[in-house]
Amino acid sequence: MTEKINLAEKLTLLDRPYLPGIVGYINDYKLQIVKIKGPFVWHKHDDTDDFFMVLKGRITIQLRDRDVELEEGEIFVVPQGVEHCPTADEEAHVLLIEPRDTVNTGDSGGELTAEPLQL
Amino acid sequence: MTEKINLAEKLTLLDRPYLPGIVGYINDYKLQIVKIKGPFVWHKHDDTDDFFMVLKGRITIQLRDRDVELEEGEIFVVPQGVEHCPTADEEAHVLLIEPRDTVNTGDSGGELTAEPLQL
Repeated sequence: MTEKINLAEKLTLLDRPYLPGIVGYINDYKLQIVKIKGPFVWHKHDDTDDFFMVLKGRITIQLRDRDVELEEGEIFVVPQGVEHCPTADEEAHVLLIEPRDTVNTGDSGGELTAEPLQL
Repeated sequence: MTEKINLAEKLTLLDRPYLPGIVGYINDYKLQIVKIKGPFVWHKHDDTDDFFMVLKGRITIQLRDRDVELEEGEIFVVPQGVEHCPTADEEAHVLLIEPRDTVNTGDSGGELTAEPLQL
């Protein structure tokens, strides 16, 4: 049987920005936490929407036509196929939900591509 | 294009416990908020896991063999097919994620069965 997940405790296990950590699953989706600081990489996911919820701090999800500013307790779902680039001036903490096989950098690849930790 | 979702603002639109409100979607999953106060109904979902995240307050997810106590910032995923009954002594606010066609009372039905509001 699964146990409950305390997100703040799990976040202490991540030692750098943009290293995703899997804290659980719902069906074939992974529940991930990540620390955001500075710009990530422009990318898109051709097969899935992308769920962001801010747990601490604030982030900007840059889209090609506008910026979405998110604070604690706010959610934004990036639609399938839409290019985006998350960024944050100060370290912020985020809950991400995506299908299990989703790669963090989507179609872009590059040095920030990371296999998530199993927390 | 979708807009960001402020969960605290959306929660003000729910006027009673156990009335679910849909705030968005990720693929074929609905993002729902609900106020919990007092016991819900024992039920299970034969086709899906069930995601609970406490946004405010604290809840107990009763299982047949134990209670799971959840505070703000904590998540519990009830596995597919497992009987559960959420409850809370004081009003608490929760984010739920389930497939779009999931009925709130699962296999049990009864008077708390509710079509979610579209918020």
